[in-house]
Amino acid sequence: MRLRNVKGASEIINNSTLVIKDYKNYKGSYKTLFNNDNPIHVEIGMGKGDFIVGMARNNPNINFIGIEKYDSVLVRALEKIDDKVTNIRLIRMDAKDIEEVFYKEIDIIYLNFSDPWPKKRHSSRRLTSTTFLKKYDNLFKDIKTIIMKTDNRKLFEFSLVEFSNYGYKIEDISLDLHKDCSSNVETEYEKKFSSLGYPIYKVIVKKNV
Amino acid sequence: MRLRNVKGASEIINNSTLVIKDYKNYKGSYKTLFNNDNPIHVEIGMGKGDFIVGMARNNPNINFIGIEKYDSVLVRALEKIDDKVTNIRLIRMDAKDIEEVFYKEIDIIYLNFSDPWPKKRHSSRRLTSTTFLKKYDNLFKDIKTIIMKTDNRKLFEFSLVEFSNYGYKIEDISLDLHKDCSSNVETEYEKKFSSLGYPIYKVIVKKNV
Repeated sequence: MRLRNVKGASEIINNSTLVIKDYKNYKGSYKTLFNNDNPIHVEIGMGKGDFIVGMARNNPNINFIGIEKYDSVLVRALEKIDDKVTNIRLIRMDAKDIEEVFYKEIDIIYLNFSDPWPKKRHSSRRLTSTTFLKKYDNLFKDIKTIIMKTDNRKLFEFSLVEFSNYGYKIEDISLDLHKDCSSNVETEYEKKFSSLGYPIYKVIVKKNV
Repeated sequence: MRLRNVKGASEIINNSTLVIKDYKNYKGSYKTLFNNDNPIHVEIGMGKGDFIVGMARNNPNINFIGIEKYDSVLVRALEKIDDKVTNIRLIRMDAKDIEEVFYKEIDIIYLNFSDPWPKKRHSSRRLTSTTFLKKYDNLFKDIKTIIMKTDNRKLFEFSLVEFSNYGYKIEDISLDLHKDCSSNVETEYEKKFSSLGYPIYKVIVKKNV
C-alpha cells in the first residue's frame, strides 16, 4: 500500500463513531457493538476498504470489522461508508496485536493482497505465517475459516504450505479467480492487477479444532 | 495422449524383458525384480516415458516402475531405455487395478499431466480423486508421497482440495514451475505446454498415516 499523507486524517478518525478507539475493551463482546448475534467477519489489512465496504453493503446480515494500520489509508475506507451501511466498524491497529482484541467471536478472517514480505528473514511477518495462524486460533468462535486473495504467487505458495501444515484443509481454491468467478467483490489492488492480466489467486481454508 | 497405432507394438512389448507381464505375481516383492533394497518410485500414466526414463538415468540408486495403459504409447517409452539403464521396468495396465499390483513397497508416486477428465460426472476417474487416493493407501511402504505436475488448472485445483481433505499435507508447491526450477525432468507434454508460455503446476504432498 503506497502511503500518501492525508491532511487531517487522524482528526477525522478521532471524530468518527465508526472507528472503534477502545477496541481492546470489546474483547469477547463485539456483538454488543452491533446489537445483534449476526456472524462477525474481519478483514485484516483492509487498505482503502473497497472490499469490506462492498461486502458490508451486499451482506446486511453479517457484521464486518476492518483493520488497518495507517490513518491515511483507513480514512479512505471511512469515506466510503454511507449512512445506509450500519454493519461495519473499523479499527486502526497493528495486526500483530490481534490476540488482544478478539476472543472466540469471529466467523471468518479475510486476508486480501497482504504484504508479501518477500525476504525470507521476514517470513514470520506474513499474515499467513504459522506465527499469525497461532494468533488467530483463539479469535474464532467455532470452525476457523480464512479466505485469502492475492496476486503474489510466492506469497500464495507459501500460504498454502503454512495453512496445510497448521491443519487447515482447503475447501475451495482458484488459481485464476477472474476466469472463474462472477460474484466477487474486488479490492483496489485486485482491479489494478487483474486489469493488467495477472492471475488472482484465492483460497478458502477451514480448520475444525 | 493422442494415440497412433504403432505397428507391431504388442509383439515388441511381449518380447521385452523390461515389460513385466506377470505383474500381479510380484505384489509385495517388487524389489526382487531389481535385486536390491533401493526405494521404488512409480509413475502412473507415464505416456511416452520421457520423465521416468530421464529420472531413472539421473537416479541410479532409485528403482522406477512406469505404468501405461496403451501398447502403442508404452512402446515409445521402451524405445528410450538403453542398456545402461537397469533400474527401470514398465507395466502395461489400467491404473484402476493398481491395488492388485503393489503392497507396502512404493516410496513415491508420480502423476504427470494426468487425464483431467473435465466432466464432473467423470471426476472419480481423475488419478487424484479420493477414489484413487484410497487405492494408493496400501501401496506405500511408510510415509505416503505423491508428486504431481500438470498444466491443467482445473485438475490442479481439484487435486489440492482432494489431497487436503484426504489428510495429505503440502510439502512444496509451485504455481509456475518453469520460473522456479532448474533441476526439473520434463515430460513430453511439459515441453510442449511450457514452450507455449502456459504455467506448469507442481505439488509435493505427504501423509504420515
